[in-house]
Amino acid sequence: MRIFEEMESEVRGYIRSFPALFDTAKGSEMFDEQGNRYIDFFAGAGTLNYGHNNPAVSEAMIEYIRHDGIIHGLDKATIAKKQFLQKFRETILAPRNLEYKVQFTGPTGTNAVETALKLARMVKKRSNIIAFTNSYHGLSMGSLAVTGNSFYRDESYGVRVNSAFVPFDGYFGDEINTIDYLRRLLEDQSSGIDLPAAIIVETVQGEGGIHVASDAWLKSLADICREFDILLIIDDIQMGNGRTGTFFSFERAGITPDMVTLSKSIGGGLPMSILLMRPELDQWKPGEHTGTFRGNNLAFVASAKLLEYWDTPDFANGVAAKSQRFEAGLSAIVNKYADTEMQLRGVGMVWGIEFNDPSFAGELSEEAFKRNLIIETAGANGQVIKCLAALTISEALIDEGLEIIDAAMQAVIEKRQQLRMGSLS
Amino acid sequence: MRIFEEMESEVRGYIRSFPALFDTAKGSEMFDEQGNRYIDFFAGAGTLNYGHNNPAVSEAMIEYIRHDGIIHGLDKATIAKKQFLQKFRETILAPRNLEYKVQFTGPTGTNAVETALKLARMVKKRSNIIAFTNSYHGLSMGSLAVTGNSFYRDESYGVRVNSAFVPFDGYFGDEINTIDYLRRLLEDQSSGIDLPAAIIVETVQGEGGIHVASDAWLKSLADICREFDILLIIDDIQMGNGRTGTFFSFERAGITPDMVTLSKSIGGGLPMSILLMRPELDQWKPGEHTGTFRGNNLAFVASAKLLEYWDTPDFANGVAAKSQRFEAGLSAIVNKYADTEMQLRGVGMVWGIEFNDPSFAGELSEEAFKRNLIIETAGANGQVIKCLAALTISEALIDEGLEIIDAAMQAVIEKRQQLRMGSLS
Amino acid sequence: MRIFEEMESEVRGYIRSFPALFDTAKGSEMFDEQGNRYIDFFAGAGTLNYGHNNPAVSEAMIEYIRHDGIIHGLDKATIAKKQFLQKFRETILAPRNLEYKVQFTGPTGTNAVETALKLARMVKKRSNIIAFTNSYHGLSMGSLAVTGNSFYRDESYGVRVNSAFVPFDGYFGDEINTIDYLRRLLEDQSSGIDLPAAIIVETVQGEGGIHVASDAWLKSLADICREFDILLIIDDIQMGNGRTGTFFSFERAGITPDMVTLSKSIGGGLPMSILLMRPELDQWKPGEHTGTFRGNNLAFVASAKLLEYWDTPDFANGVAAKSQRFEAGLSAIVNKYADTEMQLRGVGMVWGIEFNDPSFAGELSEEAFKRNLIIETAGANGQVIKCLAALTISEALIDEGLEIIDAAMQAVIEKRQQLRMGSLS
Amino acid sequence: MRIFEEMESEVRGYIRSFPALFDTAKGSEMFDEQGNRYIDFFAGAGTLNYGHNNPAVSEAMIEYIRHDGIIHGLDKATIAKKQFLQKFRETILAPRNLEYKVQFTGPTGTNAVETALKLARMVKKRSNIIAFTNSYHGLSMGSLAVTGNSFYRDESYGVRVNSAFVPFDGYFGDEINTIDYLRRLLEDQSSGIDLPAAIIVETVQGEGGIHVASDAWLKSLADICREFDILLIIDDIQMGNGRTGTFFSFERAGITPDMVTLSKSIGGGLPMSILLMRPELDQWKPGEHTGTFRGNNLAFVASAKLLEYWDTPDFANGVAAKSQRFEAGLSAIVNKYADTEMQLRGVGMVWGIEFNDPSFAGELSEEAFKRNLIIETAGANGQVIKCLAALTISEALIDEGLEIIDAAMQAVIEKRQQLRMGSLS
Repeated sequence: MRIFEEMESEVRGYIRSFPALFDTAKGSEMFDEQGNRYIDFFAGAGTLNYGHNNPAVSEAMIEYIRHDGIIHGLDKATIAKKQFLQKFRETILAPRNLEYKVQFTGPTGTNAVETALKLARMVKKRSNIIAFTNSYHGLSMGSLAVTGNSFYRDESYGVRVNSAFVPFDGYFGDEINTIDYLRRLLEDQSSGIDLPAAIIVETVQGEGGIHVASDAWLKSLADICREFDILLIIDDIQMGNGRTGTFFSFERAGITPDMVTLSKSIGGGLPMSILLMRPELDQWKPGEHTGTFRGNNLAFVASAKLLEYWDTPDFANGVAAKSQRFEAGLSAIVNKYADTEMQLRGVGMVWGIEFNDPSFAGELSEEAFKRNLIIETAGANGQVIKCLAALTISEALIDEGLEIIDAAMQAVIEKRQQLRMGSLS
Repeated sequence: MRIFEEMESEVRGYIRSFPALFDTAKGSEMFDEQGNRYIDFFAGAGTLNYGHNNPAVSEAMIEYIRHDGIIHGLDKATIAKKQFLQKFRETILAPRNLEYKVQFTGPTGTNAVETALKLARMVKKRSNIIAFTNSYHGLSMGSLAVTGNSFYRDESYGVRVNSAFVPFDGYFGDEINTIDYLRRLLEDQSSGIDLPAAIIVETVQGEGGIHVASDAWLKSLADICREFDILLIIDDIQMGNGRTGTFFSFERAGITPDMVTLSKSIGGGLPMSILLMRPELDQWKPGEHTGTFRGNNLAFVASAKLLEYWDTPDFANGVAAKSQRFEAGLSAIVNKYADTEMQLRGVGMVWGIEFNDPSFAGELSEEAFKRNLIIETAGANGQVIKCLAALTISEALIDEGLEIIDAAMQAVIEKRQQLRMGSLS
Repeated sequence: MRIFEEMESEVRGYIRSFPALFDTAKGSEMFDEQGNRYIDFFAGAGTLNYGHNNPAVSEAMIEYIRHDGIIHGLDKATIAKKQFLQKFRETILAPRNLEYKVQFTGPTGTNAVETALKLARMVKKRSNIIAFTNSYHGLSMGSLAVTGNSFYRDESYGVRVNSAFVPFDGYFGDEINTIDYLRRLLEDQSSGIDLPAAIIVETVQGEGGIHVASDAWLKSLADICREFDILLIIDDIQMGNGRTGTFFSFERAGITPDMVTLSKSIGGGLPMSILLMRPELDQWKPGEHTGTFRGNNLAFVASAKLLEYWDTPDFANGVAAKSQRFEAGLSAIVNKYADTEMQLRGVGMVWGIEFNDPSFAGELSEEAFKRNLIIETAGANGQVIKCLAALTISEALIDEGLEIIDAAMQAVIEKRQQLRMGSLS
Repeated sequence: MRIFEEMESEVRGYIRSFPALFDTAKGSEMFDEQGNRYIDFFAGAGTLNYGHNNPAVSEAMIEYIRHDGIIHGLDKATIAKKQFLQKFRETILAPRNLEYKVQFTGPTGTNAVETALKLARMVKKRSNIIAFTNSYHGLSMGSLAVTGNSFYRDESYGVRVNSAFVPFDGYFGDEINTIDYLRRLLEDQSSGIDLPAAIIVETVQGEGGIHVASDAWLKSLADICREFDILLIIDDIQMGNGRTGTFFSFERAGITPDMVTLSKSIGGGLPMSILLMRPELDQWKPGEHTGTFRGNNLAFVASAKLLEYWDTPDFANGVAAKSQRFEAGLSAIVNKYADTEMQLRGVGMVWGIEFNDPSFAGELSEEAFKRNLIIETAGANGQVIKCLAALTISEALIDEGLEIIDAAMQAVIEKRQQLRMGSLS
């Protein structure tokens, strides 16, 4: 591992949390150089909803490469892109009565967010964008301006221009409806919050610590956007692709956003991002926004293949069953260790436990890794354990993983007790 | 092709310039659905320096996929990443006495640029960045602030924060040394140009219209940066990876930048970007700058394989020979049509012809495509024909392509003569 | 009056609300060209707390001019400036145990605000400033970024950089303590609200519509600033100089801000602004912030003279009595016209009535002016009648003015009834 | 003087350069507490073009105060304002065939500049503003963004938004026409310099170090503005009011700017600023831009009185004669001390000598003050001695002042010789 220390920037992170040299992976299992097996409750931060090296994808990719299919296409027309568009329309958009146009942006999430914000400002001719507390939309300068966590910004370089933050659902306790507060700010032309071009929101804040917006809150948000002529952008980069149980995370609320950003799992693990927009908003001039890797055709091949999961309701049904299994298992753990103050939150296949003692989550992740489970922390202080297993995970692996969490909980608690007794004696 | 019109955003560009439905590609040839063959003098805007579907890469990728190698790794340690780092050190850095640390950024060029600018500001605790006229560094908000072309910005959304533009080499005629002007601005604390954290520059401006900075100018620029304690960032996204004849484009000037951005061809057609930095500058905190696709392991596999081209001097020697062939061929065309005012510029395997009549270049590209040559325009008004063939192209294909350019020139000139005569009669 | 229409910019405002050609004024009475007398409940938007042409000031000014005293001094030392500093220390600072240093800024309020924000950012090395809903701090670009009302900003030119707005006391109903919300935002490093250099606040929002922060809220705000190492800036431009009953408006809350901006009445009607700062914050380099009119010596003469009002408690006692007279009189009106929905708010000598029907206030102001009372509207929609009489006004004039308000109320109500009946018939 | 040290901010500057406690002043003479007399070659940084305590003004002010004339009028109509408008139209605008509308802005120069920039952006719906190297337009955030000197900005607080700097006349040597460079930047949509709403310029840069734009350069600038549909704003705050020999400084070039900012001497020493604009540009909504002291009526009285100087050509003729006296006297000094490298520059009644050794100017100012002459330095490094005497100064005082400069030159040179000899021995 020395070469990473010698050559890779100090910014490296996960190599520190999960110090193994990984070699191969399949479904929800990863294997290191020595052949040690790890259960993956992380799924590439939501990029591997369909598992590592999904066989159907591997097959399709190999075939495409063998065929000498176009790999890098900029925005030229290619067979692979055509097939992706057809499949996406047929399987995803049409059954949901959605008529979005598709923009292929640079290949990573922040490129889609930047594109959405730029288009929103251009169309609405307004500069302000509203985002929410604990939001995460990416780290390039445009996206960073709507990302809550100040860790990613530093006084020496960062400026916030034309963005404003308002409280997410539940941010100020259960009694206070934060949409009422938003309405007050919008109605009052003297609130300091200029009428925005758009509001950008995650229906479930993943990096922010697994905060689930209620259906009613999302509906009110959509209503308020329509009422004030504000574009609603759902950032579905982490929560789309079935993560919350439906393909789009906003389906549960019965709303239709003006724009949707998709990335992470849409390319089956390969870099790919798209922006969906209502056709009226598609006011770009040709070539006005570009990016070298907006035509990653290998990702189009993978994507078209994976969208087949959504051809029948079976896949969603399976996810629902696994969701319940997760919820039940984690609830049991929360109840078992009732002395440790923590809250379980989640929906679909995204679950988190927030610990009142922020350092608990990091220790738990560490103990879990010792027991060969990969599970990440989230939240501003890393105070949340985040379960983000692949949607294709088997029930057996879920159970095995939950048992490791249980054992790791026990281990952290015991270690802390010993520390406390040690400091007493 | 109807589905692209129906579903893809109006922003699509190259599909309009090159209206074919492409299927496969090999080396410097592309084939459309009907099996028509095209010669590629575009090379994915510099992403395919080693040709389409380079056999060595295809083989390595298939093997890696078959092996179930990690595809998406965030910044976990993987065998593929380790091998890339080793190969990059051994083949590229060590022989050139470079001791850069490597940061894996988001997978497209603009992510590397954003990372470089953020780090420069953080380390130097200064907000300003200087860029050059006709520069192109990407379109996310941070990069856009140092990109010259206002087409990509629109009054309704764009702000320029903390960046300043100064004239590139030769911008104001041959007599004026623009470095002297830069020195004047830096020495004068009242010039309005605040001492910058960094100066970012392309050694050859590709998108800007093939402007080649001289060795002396680049050396003076490096000197002035050292003298004023300014970081020098070479954006080698399009001009690195051998495009100008050496692996890094700045080698010809004998300078060592503080940071270098690499992307496009570094991943052999797959999305990948890295930032190189002098070790002292690596002041990041773990996880302080991240990105979902900073661990695109398939690209690492492709990259490590392609770096083998640089193991011996043969490759660079071959590029030099082809460079001369291009220069000679294009010079002949320029001389042949001496009535058409145009200038040839270039170095290595990047050549451009600027036409005094800006619309000529677009018509030439169109006529060339009718004859099955893919060649793009560049420059603020699309006034330049840009030859950016793969470095691996055969001499026969170069000649064939040049003949098409010749024929297309003839066709444009004739068409114009007919138009003129038509309007006279 | 035609010359104003011909030559003065369309931006002119009060000349439209109060269409008379004014000639002279004395105390709380103004006289137009024809000798018509008006009672002044506006006091130059709080600039004339000590009345028009206060005899003591007029005398001192004439004497100073006759003596050929320095009029314009930049920041040279002058006798007039020395006497102002001595008087200000002796009469204002020392008795209140305040040890502020004084910076003479440009002569109008926004210059003092810009200076305070710049110094706060420089000292704390943080870019963010927090301001409140409905705040008004001036219209030059730095101050405008912390002014709530979007009327003063326009999408075509304005950017908000490095400022964030949070709710003022009572902004979201009586049950919600907005300081708790502020605390939540500050504690959460992922709230999107970066730790600010300073919080700037008016203890009573005048332009914003007469919102009075409670003593407890102000105390909590001061506590939270200390706790999070944030500078507290009280913008006392309109509410200082006795407007709320004490010299500084924050005295009632028993807090000591880090900085205080003073302007308007401090110069007795002549342009003058100062910034007070705790000595540790005075980290300016000589000449680092300047302004042509920072040494308006005629204003220093006026100011020193007027500060004599504060030598004994008599003046404050008199203000307290008049405050009660205002409150009682306005309460009686509110009760008398109980069918008209309105709320009375205020403290000291600043009182406002907010009407649920926003256009009521403007009509009332118009009717009052017909009856020779000058009274302004405030609030984002001009929905508030603002009583801002001079502190030196006589009880007789208060009563006379209140009677006019009563009559004007009656007139507006009758007019509306007639309109309603008219539209019915 | 102790109270200034104890109570006034460290930012104080001129009190350090001219350490006397001033009491009275008349014309071009000032007197300190002890009755010492000083000749004033500084004139309040250009605020006292008509001398200290001009008798006509003093008389008019006293009369106005005695009459209880409105002192503070916001933007209400007053007799004093009406008389100013009439006089300004009759004496200044009409004879010059100018049809500007007048906006009364906040009372100091930077308020007028902020107003001009805001209006330009609003009208043109473009964000960028172009300013020049060595420009000085004020220190509030909007103006600071177009002020060249970085001393007034500090990395910890300052951002440059939407402004760009280009070289002033002669900035890069006599051979290079900087207007050609500007044209190149504007014609090239990829230059990084977005088409600006306005270009703001001083015809003579005062604070920047006495740089005089040539008539031809100014004419070309006006032409280029018209050609590219850019508003031309002349900042005539320091150079207007006759400083360069005509009332407006741009008269010599025969151009008509779109907007003009006036302040400093327009109020005869009292704070006053106005913005002049072509009527078509007056697109403000009522009250859209305000300021407490935009109706400083005492300044209107002073101003109307002083404009009488321009009723006949006598005044301008007198200024021309004095200008020649200054030029001749300073040239003689420059020639006399030919061993000291320096350049004389100027026009009208603004003259500067730039010393190759920057510290020379400061020492000269110091020696001059010892001999009772007040003369300031200018330029980024204080390398210029700036003669800015009142236009009303007598020839005798000019001569006396020039003799002091001569003596001070001698003293500095001798001191330096002694130092050199001391360090040799």
